[in-house]
Order: sequence, then structure tokens, then C-alpha cells
Amino acid sequence: MNEQMTERPWETLSEILKTSDTEELRRYLEALSPAETARTVSRLSSQEQSKLLMVLEPQDAADVIEGFSDTQAIELIEYLPAENAAAIVDEIPSDRQADLLAELDEKDAEAILKEMSPEEADAVRHLLTYDPNTAGGLMIKEYVAYKEEDRVCDVLEDLENNRGIYKDYHVQYLYVRDKEERLAGVLRIHDLLYAPRDALLNTLMIKDPLYVSVQATVGKLREFFSEHGLFGVPVVDTESKLVGVVLPVAVEEASVKRANRQFLGLSGIVGGEEFRTMPLLVRSGRRFSWLSINIVLNIIAASVIAYYQDTLVAVIALAVFLPMISDMSGCSGNQAVAVSMRELTLGLIRPKEILRVIGKELGLGALNGLGLGLLLGGVALLWKGNPFLGLVVGGALMANTMLAVTFGGVLPLALKSVKLDPALVSSPVLTTVTDMCGFFLVLSLATALLPRLAGG
Amino acid sequence: MNEQMTERPWETLSEILKTSDTEELRRYLEALSPAETARTVSRLSSQEQSKLLMVLEPQDAADVIEGFSDTQAIELIEYLPAENAAAIVDEIPSDRQADLLAELDEKDAEAILKEMSPEEADAVRHLLTYDPNTAGGLMIKEYVAYKEEDRVCDVLEDLENNRGIYKDYHVQYLYVRDKEERLAGVLRIHDLLYAPRDALLNTLMIKDPLYVSVQATVGKLREFFSEHGLFGVPVVDTESKLVGVVLPVAVEEASVKRANRQFLGLSGIVGGEEFRTMPLLVRSGRRFSWLSINIVLNIIAASVIAYYQDTLVAVIALAVFLPMISDMSGCSGNQAVAVSMRELTLGLIRPKEILRVIGKELGLGALNGLGLGLLLGGVALLWKGNPFLGLVVGGALMANTMLAVTFGGVLPLALKSVKLDPALVSSPVLTTVTDMCGFFLVLSLATALLPRLAGG
Repeated sequence: MNEQMTERPWETLSEILKTSDTEELRRYLEALSPAETARTVSRLSSQEQSKLLMVLEPQDAADVIEGFSDTQAIELIEYLPAENAAAIVDEIPSDRQADLLAELDEKDAEAILKEMSPEEADAVRHLLTYDPNTAGGLMIKEYVAYKEEDRVCDVLEDLENNRGIYKDYHVQYLYVRDKEERLAGVLRIHDLLYAPRDALLNTLMIKDPLYVSVQATVGKLREFFSEHGLFGVPVVDTESKLVGVVLPVAVEEASVKRANRQFLGLSGIVGGEEFRTMPLLVRSGRRFSWLSINIVLNIIAASVIAYYQDTLVAVIALAVFLPMISDMSGCSGNQAVAVSMRELTLGLIRPKEILRVIGKELGLGALNGLGLGLLLGGVALLWKGNPFLGLVVGGALMANTMLAVTFGGVLPLALKSVKLDPALVSSPVLTTVTDMCGFFLVLSLATALLPRLAGG
Repeated sequence: MNEQMTERPWETLSEILKTSDTEELRRYLEALSPAETARTVSRLSSQEQSKLLMVLEPQDAADVIEGFSDTQAIELIEYLPAENAAAIVDEIPSDRQADLLAELDEKDAEAILKEMSPEEADAVRHLLTYDPNTAGGLMIKEYVAYKEEDRVCDVLEDLENNRGIYKDYHVQYLYVRDKEERLAGVLRIHDLLYAPRDALLNTLMIKDPLYVSVQATVGKLREFFSEHGLFGVPVVDTESKLVGVVLPVAVEEASVKRANRQFLGLSGIVGGEEFRTMPLLVRSGRRFSWLSINIVLNIIAASVIAYYQDTLVAVIALAVFLPMISDMSGCSGNQAVAVSMRELTLGLIRPKEILRVIGKELGLGALNGLGLGLLLGGVALLWKGNPFLGLVVGGALMANTMLAVTFGGVLPLALKSVKLDPALVSSPVLTTVTDMCGFFLVLSLATALLPRLAGG
């Protein structure tokens, strides 16, 4: 929140880095806000970034990493020697450790895990076995659990002795395990306040506590926390053993990530986030791979136009309207795609409810198609004075809008049913279909009415 | 979680509703998960929804409302008589109350506020004075504060006496005010554990605690919580008075909302969320208002084609390529828009760094333009056997890709500088500009090379 900072703080940082003065570096970074730190460090060269992370104390380097998005953090880590990377990763909370290691090459991840402290490494290896969008992937290992037969005084003593470790934990509840390591109960810190010091935990704890399974999805977890305003929920595996705790913040972060993935996917940024600090060829290659699929689909769609060349020569005005019909149908269809994706995310609709969506979109498509068709048809009529041109252009846009809206509404449900990601697949499929149909409608109608049009 | 539920639970609910049996309704809804409740209730008619909320106890009705997104919740509330709405809103946490009332008509909101309990209404009125995307708008009023000269025993007694009220609060910290109501310190519940019962709070509390101002933005709050792993942060007004507490979950929720707004905005769903349970005319009208702006922009862009009609008649093959160049340039440009929007959100770039973006996008645009241009030019050459057609089409796509990528990258920064929302404005502006330039490049190049092309 240092507003008087220099315009280009990375230049200052780069200067300090030359001196390798750990203390000075720490001081400089501490004066920057986390966003400023991320911006500043991202502007350094890869060599400088690696040096910075190696010169800083691991805890300070971990603070830098924590301010970064996963994609950026991984780029920084993968250039470090495994032992330096491990020392830094050791200092990061376990759910984030798992997120990062999951996105590294398996070989790089393994090298880092080998260098980490054995307990930390075991905890992360365990988290890595779960899907990152389930409770197993979102849970943290930083929780405090005791045995049923422990006493209040044992707990207080342990809390006191391990203050240094626990202070970084989000300790709201203490968990109680039975002899088979199963979750037996939950104890609120508050409830220790008035308890006799020699009471057994199983006399104080809340029995049959709420919990989720390792497979619980982000959606289920959001529901859980909106229903129960708790600070965390214990996670149990298939044998009812307590294996971790999910915090509400982790669930919301997963939702933010999903919404961002949808946004980027629909915009054609696929295969991970892109930042302009990445190498040009990586950025260009990733974007191009998506574009090259689209251009092939475009060529297929445009072949419809090539088929009707003679009609186009006879009524060249149609060439003006083809791109508009393509673009407007894409717009109408994308609106319906977005509404379906939101309704799916919110659980307001199920993938098999395709008939419901058709029912809801067909009428809307007819209305908006009528409006757009009248507009564009009117423009065509006014321009060339030929009512048949208006009829062809307006009629085709109207019919194609109905089709685009209905198809766009159904598409995400259909993709979801066959386990494809609507955010990645909807847009190219939609525009190809609506382009082909739109071109066909205009040009086949025009061919049928050719004598009336060519006279215009 | 009730998987054996009927396929169409809203029909069962509708049947129960006819009996107006409060207890039976409550039991039926309780068996549904929150998402199922939202889906089920949203499928009822407006009359049935109003009846349901009025028949249920206010607390149960509030639970139903809390499972809904703001847009849906408002639709339900605005049809209720003000006194029923007020009784329900009374039961909702204060930050959510403010979100909902802020989106209602001022008259409706005022009617509800008049019927609410005076303390609740005052708290909400206060929250409503702040921008919903600042600490003032995100904070809750459900916190517990004491005076500096209070003693531990006073606090414990108060906590005990008001257990019923405080159990719904997220009490992690107790806040301590000085005589002028200013924030003086923070006390962790834990620290009461070992404290002598007659100790004054100002001897136990953490002095000079961390706080944020009512104006702190979502971005600053995210930074704050990522830097300090706290359960909440006190919010002070311009006179340093303690006015509320922001929880990390509220900040993440605001981020989810922003990401969804971006996603919907880019897809052409503007003016609020759309659900298919809304009336057809509302849905159609909102979508159409955005489409009608786009069709006008499309007509403007297509006028470039109309201007070059003679060239098109001479080389009709160009008509096949125009929609492709429009579509592909839009795709390339949208990728750059998405990257800029993400970098702006993450604070990795500032709105005035336009030159940096140009530098980073121009090279990428040249590379990808070359790739796409070679592809499309090659197709044109193979199709018609005319190298000049390939040159015109490929060259135009290459140049227009460079332009689209650079313009797309810069656009969100420029819009942000003039306080326009990139999510709403980027896409229509981008496609209009890239369409016009694309059409102009193809057709003016073709006109210049007409003798070579017409012979092909």
C-alpha cells in the first residue's frame, strides 16, 4: 500500500538482487503489497526470478509464491533446483502444495517431493491421489486431532507446547478420533473454556459430527457451507478415517478458478492461463493451436458459400449479408450457451433436461429472430428496394436465430452428458453449425427466388 | 443428498402447498439439498412461490432464500407483501440483506426496511450507503465488541447470556472499542482461556490491530487475507470508528460474482443474470437489447463490403473468405482481450501500460497471423489455382490478425482507463473494428490486384 513507490519497481529489485543482500531484498519486498510483489517479480527475467527465490529465506520465498496464481508459481518453481524448490514448497499450506505439484511434470514433482521433509511430502502425496475438485483435493492436512480418551489437560498442554506450529493452522475445531482412527467427534475451542481439566474428550465432544467424504464435489461443498455456517468440515475416507479438513475459503477459491476457466475457455485461452511474462513462443503456440482448429471449422462452414457461387454472382448484395448472419447467429447462440452453463453450475438444470431447454429457447428464438429478421430484412429492402431480398435475408436470419438459440441452449447440456467441457467445446461447435445453417438458409432461399432477386 | 427423490419434486411440493401444511412443507424441503431446493422452488409458479414463503416460518423461508443467487432471491421477495418480506429478510445475515435490498426498487426496499426490526433495518441502511464491492458493502454487522474498561468476567457473562444470538455469528475475535467508539484492539477467544477473570480487556487485547477502511476494494481485501491468514478483519470508517467486520468468505464470494459477471458479459448476457424460470418477455427483451446494438454495428462494418461490390462481382471467390476473415480475427482478438482482462484483475498490469501490451502482442500477432495467413492463403491457392488470390486472402488475414491481437490486447486497458467495463464493451467494439479492417484489407488488396485475380 506504498503508493509513492517507483514506477518500475522491478528495476530497483533487479539492482538489489545484484548485491545478493538477503535482508535488503526481504525489506524491499515487504514494503510492496502482494499484488505489487506479483507484478514486480513477474517482470524480472527467469534468471533473476530464480536467483531471488534462492537468495531469500525459504519462508519469505514462499510468501512471494503464495501471492501468485498457480500458473505463475509453477513457472517460478520449475526453474529452481529441486532442493531449493522443496525448501520453499515446505513452507506453503498443504492444499496449495498439492495444487502446484499436481501441475508440474511428474518427474519435477517427484524430485521436489524427495527433497521435502518426509511428513510434508507424505501429506502432499496423499492429497495428490485425489481429484483437485473434490474434498480430497481441497482439504488441508493442517488440523489438530486427539484421541477419545485424551483429557482436557492433555489438549491444553499440547496446544501450549505446539503453539508455534498451530499458530499457522486455522484451528477452530479440534477433532477426536476413535481407536481405529475414525472420526468420533468434534470439539469447539470454546467448549474447553469451562470444562474440568480432567474431563475425557469423549464426554465433551459433539458426537456424530457433520463430515464430508473425500469424493464430495465443489458444488456439494458449497451447499454444505451455505447450509451449515461452519469454519471447516472434516473429511473422511472410505473407511471413515479422518484424513483432512476443508475450509470454506478453499471451496470459494475453487469456484473462482472454475469461473475463470469458463471465461478463458470461451475466449479461446485453453491449456492453462496465459500471462504476458511467458515466452512468446509458448503464448503464440497455445493460442495458435486453438485458432487452427477454428480455421478448419471455418473452412468447412464456408464451403457452403462456395457451393452457391452462381447465386452470389447473380445477387452480389447477398455477400454483404453473409458475415452479418454468421456473426449475429453466433451472438444469439452464445447468449443461450452462457445461460445454460450458469444454470448447470448452479444446479438449476440437469444435463438430461434437454426438452425443457428446447421449450424455453424456441419461443425466445422466435421472438428475437423476428426482431432481428425484421431489422435486417428492412435494411436490405431499403438498400436495394427489393422486397424479395428483404424476405430472403430477414427470413434466413429469423430461422437461423431460432436454430442458434435452441442449439446453443441445448449444447452445454449435451456436452456435459458426454463428459466434455462446455467451456472449451461449445463455442467452436456452435459457430460452425450456425454458420453452415445460416449460409445454407440465405443461399438456398435466394436460389429458389433467384428470378425475383436478380431483377432487383 | 436424497438420491431416490422423485424426478419432478416441484409437483410434489405443489401438492403439499395446496394443503398449506407448514410442518409438512418444512419437512419436505428439509429432505432436499440446498441446490435441489433452489431447483425445485424455482420451477413453481410465482403464485406458488409467494404462497410457499408466506406459509413457511420466516426462518425456514430465509433458508430457502439463502440457497438462491441474488437475482433469483430478489424475484421471490419482490412479489411478497412488505411485512412478509421483512420478516424473512430479518433472518438473513446483514451483508446478504444489503446485497438483496440494493438490487430491489428503491420503493420496494424502503417498504421492507420500514417493516423490519429497527436495529436490523438501521444496520442494513448503513451497509447500503457503501459500494457493494468495497469493505463497506461486504462487511457484516454480526460481530461482538466490548469496551476497553470491560473485564474478562463481563465478557464471559455476556457471551454466556447471549449464546443464542452469538451462535449465528462468526465469532473468532472480540473487538474492543475506546470511549470514542474507535477500534482500540482485538482479542482472540483463545486468549480469554488463561486470563484472570478480573483482568481489563485493554491489558489483554492486541493493540494497534490490523484493520481496513470502508473503501478497501475486493482486490485489496483479497491481498489482505492472502497476506494475513485471519478469520476476519475489522472495518473502520473515516473517523476510525469500528463499523463492521469482513470475512474472507465474503471476499471470495465477491470474486466469484465478478468472474461470473465477466463471463456473462462477454457472452452478451447483460443487465443481470438470466434464468429460464424468468418470464419469456423479460429474457427475450434483455437479450434483444444487446443483440440490437450488435446488429447495428454489424451493418456499419458490412457497409465496407457494399462499397466494393464491383470487385466482389469480378472475383466472387472472395465472398467465401469474408466471413472467415471476420470470424478468425474476432477469435484472435478475443484471446488477447481475455489475457488483458485477467492480467488487470490480478493486478499484473496497469491500465496505462498500453505500450507494454502493444510490444507483447505485436510479435505474437505477427507469428499467428503468419500461420493463419499461410493456411488460408494455401487453401485459396489450392482451390482456385491462383497465387494472387492466395496472396490477397492470406496477406489480409495476416495483417488483420496482427491488428486484432494488438487492438484486443489494448482495448480492456483503454476501457478501464475511461471507467468502462471491459466485460461489456470489449467484444462488440473489437468485432466491429476487426470486421471493418478485415473487409477493407481483403477488398482493397483485391481491387489493386484485380487484373491478376479476375483472370484466375
